[in-house]
Formats: sequence, structure tokens, C-alpha cells
Amino acid sequence: MNLVTIDDIQTAAKRIEGVAVRTPLLPQPWGSPAGLWLKPENLQQIGAFKVRGAYNAIAALDEETRTRGVVAYSSGNHAQAVAYAAKLFGVPAVIVVPNVTPRIKVEATRAHGAEVVEVPIAERESAAYAIVAERNLTLIPPFDHPEVIAGQGTIGLEIAQDAPDVDVVLIPVSGGGLASGIGTAIRALCPNAKIYGVEPELAADTAEGLRAGARVDWAMDRRARTIADGLRSQPSELTFAHLQAVLDGLLTVTEDEIRSAVRTLAFKAHLVVEPSGAVATAAYLFHGDELPEGKTVSVVSGGNLDPATLVELLSQ
Amino acid sequence: MNLVTIDDIQTAAKRIEGVAVRTPLLPQPWGSPAGLWLKPENLQQIGAFKVRGAYNAIAALDEETRTRGVVAYSSGNHAQAVAYAAKLFGVPAVIVVPNVTPRIKVEATRAHGAEVVEVPIAERESAAYAIVAERNLTLIPPFDHPEVIAGQGTIGLEIAQDAPDVDVVLIPVSGGGLASGIGTAIRALCPNAKIYGVEPELAADTAEGLRAGARVDWAMDRRARTIADGLRSQPSELTFAHLQAVLDGLLTVTEDEIRSAVRTLAFKAHLVVEPSGAVATAAYLFHGDELPEGKTVSVVSGGNLDPATLVELLSQ
Repeated sequence: MNLVTIDDIQTAAKRIEGVAVRTPLLPQPWGSPAGLWLKPENLQQIGAFKVRGAYNAIAALDEETRTRGVVAYSSGNHAQAVAYAAKLFGVPAVIVVPNVTPRIKVEATRAHGAEVVEVPIAERESAAYAIVAERNLTLIPPFDHPEVIAGQGTIGLEIAQDAPDVDVVLIPVSGGGLASGIGTAIRALCPNAKIYGVEPELAADTAEGLRAGARVDWAMDRRARTIADGLRSQPSELTFAHLQAVLDGLLTVTEDEIRSAVRTLAFKAHLVVEPSGAVATAAYLFHGDELPEGKTVSVVSGGNLDPATLVELLSQ
Repeated sequence: MNLVTIDDIQTAAKRIEGVAVRTPLLPQPWGSPAGLWLKPENLQQIGAFKVRGAYNAIAALDEETRTRGVVAYSSGNHAQAVAYAAKLFGVPAVIVVPNVTPRIKVEATRAHGAEVVEVPIAERESAAYAIVAERNLTLIPPFDHPEVIAGQGTIGLEIAQDAPDVDVVLIPVSGGGLASGIGTAIRALCPNAKIYGVEPELAADTAEGLRAGARVDWAMDRRARTIADGLRSQPSELTFAHLQAVLDGLLTVTEDEIRSAVRTLAFKAHLVVEPSGAVATAAYLFHGDELPEGKTVSVVSGGNLDPATLVELLSQ
């Protein structure tokens, strides 16, 4: 299997320049003496890192293919990322969402000019493939795609530029595209750094898979228990191979630890972060004994949560 | 009266490089078609822009003077900025605070290694001057100082670097150091941009003063009515002269508009912002008819507010 290379990530960085926000590393005085820095991807226009991979994947299409348009199935940050990136290219986007998706998310996706197709949740994937076939469009998957992985990897490139002496990098893991990309960049540019994925304990299929040396399947209703609704996917063959190659370890965090990290990020770092975006910081805060000491970067992957949930989390 | 120049600001930028966070401009898809960008100074280590001016003023002291130590009187962001900057230089800092200051703020200042002296609120200024005289230390004022103004001006330098074609810049006004510095930089580097100060309606002494052509005094209890507790100061002769020279206008916003902007910044921009830090965005959201159209930058000056107040504001 061909893995994404640092060259692929550098090509992606050129494509997304001026499109994705070049997020800074934010030093945190409440971190340990060696230092904690946050990489705040919740500050992207769409509120999450996903714009990097979606834009890179669409940019990598030949022009004729791209002009026909793209399709994504997702109710989350990837849907908005594909809709937003397609709008920037001026090409059609069709987003297939479950018909139980909150109106606010449907409207946000439509606001980027995308066509939203609502289907029963079980038909989401098949409906997307049917649209791809019928209309001759191109599917942009959320993580199982080299150009998506390379786009997310630009975060690692930026971390290496801003903190070449980084010792530890902590990255949320779900489908694994983010950790695959960042891990590949850090491995290449900061060979001495240790790279850890982080999962909710309630959706820890990748932790189990890495221990077993092969992907394992957790039923969707088991993974759906976590409040971190962006971390309920599982790696593909492609991302799992990357994770095996680049991760030094994978930590799991509890639901209470995730909630607490959301509060710390709001009250001390002044960032609104969704539960999925807070898991790496939760690992830093509560599992320091499982991590090497040193200059640590925690990737804050997104900030999209509805106001009522945010207030509830902050009130605890 | 000598006003701060772009050269002073460029010197300050060299001094604070690597100390203050180089904040990005954050594009906001909910802005008008011409575009809204936020300058998120709430992401500084101490949660506010004040570190720029405090560090620059301490850096500008000759070494012998600096080594003896510095004094500030403030219960707010300036106190933490001076304590933090002094710690970076390894010099003593004495911070004089009213004896009604919340423990959390006293502890945060102590955590930076500063000596905190608590006095009755009316004696705050005289106590600070007494310490300066007795111990032969140097007072670092919150805004009435050319090097403090030049330090805050580095924000304008960065805006001009990142958005050279900016049309409108919106800046909170209290003592006026922030708007003096940013305005000076933007005037020099983006001569076609329009520069607006923003005040709470309940602490609009500068708006009245600019209309009258001279500083006016509002009693402290009148200014203290606003929820924007960082915007209750009044300009000095020095900052007022800058504001007269650089501002195209000054807008005022209501308390409800400020509260609403805090919510918009949290829910749509994923930033935790204190009321004082939200006034420029409130002007953008609610007073667009008083502003020129075009590419707009709103300065988000700080994010320090206690958890209970944040939850209360977000729950409305």
C-alpha cells in the first residue's frame, strides 16, 4: 500500500495557502514547565480542520472532473468543508445527510451553496454512490483518500515550522485521516518527536486495533455512546496503515475528562471547542503519566457544537 | 506633543517577536459579502493584547533601571501583562490592586511571580507612587506612555501585513492606548483605510470628547455602569491627541449589543471573549449603517472573564 509522503503534504500546503487559516501555536501558561501549545483548528472558517483535506482533494482533481462537481456524505464538519471548498472553486456540491440531521447543520451546508439531499440514515452511503453514478460526479470521502490525508497533514507541517523542537504531538483519532497526515509530516520533519493518537474510551476501536496489529470493528451503537460525536468513525485500511507507521502510542480518555477539557479550553485558553476537539487536551491534562515529558503540542481539531450543548458543558 | 510614529511601532515589533503571539486574521463566513476578519488578541498567553505594550515598555528601559523592577496599579489585564513581562525579563514586579479584587485575579497575578499589594481602592494610585519612590522602581502605566502605545500598535502592523487592502478597522476604546497604537500603524501603512473607535454607550466619554474637540470627564460611577469592565478608563492627554489624529469616527454600542456580540463570537467564531473585547464586533453587527462598506477587521481585545459570567452571558 502506498502511504502519503511529505512531498504530498508539501504540495497540499501550496494548494491550501490563503484558503485555510494559517493557525498559530498558542502557548498555554497553565501547561507544565516544559510547555503546552495548542494548534487551534476550531478557528478555521468552517470551525474545523476538515477544510484542509476537502480543499486539497478537490484541488487535486483534473479541471474537467472538478467542474462537473463533487459529492460527500456526512452530517458533520466534512459536509461543510466540502460545500465550502466547492464554493471556492465555483463547482457544484451535493451533500447527502441523514434526514435526522439538525436543521442548523442543514442550513449551514446550504448557506455554502451546496445541494443537500436528505435520506434515511441507513441509505446515506448508497444514496451518495447513486448520485455519483447518475450525475457523473466525484465522491470526496472524509478520510479514506490520499489527498484528504495530505491536506490534513499540512497541520503537521505548520507545527514543525513553528516548533521544530517539539517533543510530543497529541492528535484526535476517529477515521484517522488527521493523525495519518499530521503524523507523516512530524515523522519526516521532527524525527525525534513522539506522536500519540487520542480516542474516547467509549470509541476506542483504534487503540484495540493497534494493540492487536489489525483493524477491529466496533458496532456503531457502541461507538455512538461517546459525547465526542466527531470521533465515532473507524479507520480504513489506508488510514490504519498510516497510523501503524507513524503513531508511538494511542491514549484513551473518559467522557468526564473530555468534558473537563472543554471547560479548561474555554476558561483558560479562550477557545470554544467541541468534545471531539478536546480529547488531545484531555489526554494532556489527565494522562501525563502515560506521556513523555517535554514540549507538547495538542491539536484542537474543531469547535462546532450547538449553543445549548456548549452552555451545558460549561455549566458543569 | 510628540506622537508615536510608525518607526516606534516597528521597533516594538522587533522587541515583542516571539513573546506575544503573532495572532492571525480570522475570516468570518457570517460577515457581510465584503468580508469580516477578527484579530483575536484574546489568544495571547495572558488572554489580552496588554502583553504587547507592557513588554515593550519594560524592554525599552535601560538595563540598570529594568533590573531594579517595575510597578503597576491595575486589577485587570494590565496587571497580569506587567507581571508576565517582568517574569520573562527576570525582574521584580509589584502590582497594586484594590482590596476588593477577586481572589482568582490576585492569584493569577501572583502565579506570574509578582508581589501583590492590596490597598483600599481610593489609595491605589498613591500607594503605587509611594512604592515607586520608596523602592526606586519604575511605574509601567496601562496606556499613558509612548512605549505602551507603540507596543499595542504592533497589532496594526500585523493587520497591515495580513490585509494590506483593509477598508475598515474597528478598535475598542477605553484609555485609548490600543486605538492610538493601531490607528497610527494603519494610518501609516494603509492610508485609505477608515479607522473607528468603539465605546460602550454607558462609558462614552471619548465619543463626547472627540465631538467637543477636547477631553471630557465622566465620573467613575457613571463609567462603571457598563458590563465592559475593561473599558471604564478615560484617555490621557497623550492618547486623546493620538485618537484625534488617527480616528475617522467613534461608534457607541449598547449593553445588549455587547452581550449579543459575546454570544456571536462564541457560537460562530469559537472564541471566548470578555464584554470589553466584543464591542468592536458589536459595532460591526449592529451599526453597519454608520460604517463604510468594505473589508473590515474587528479587533477582539481580550477574553478574561470568570466562568460564571461567561455561562450567564451565553445562556441569554
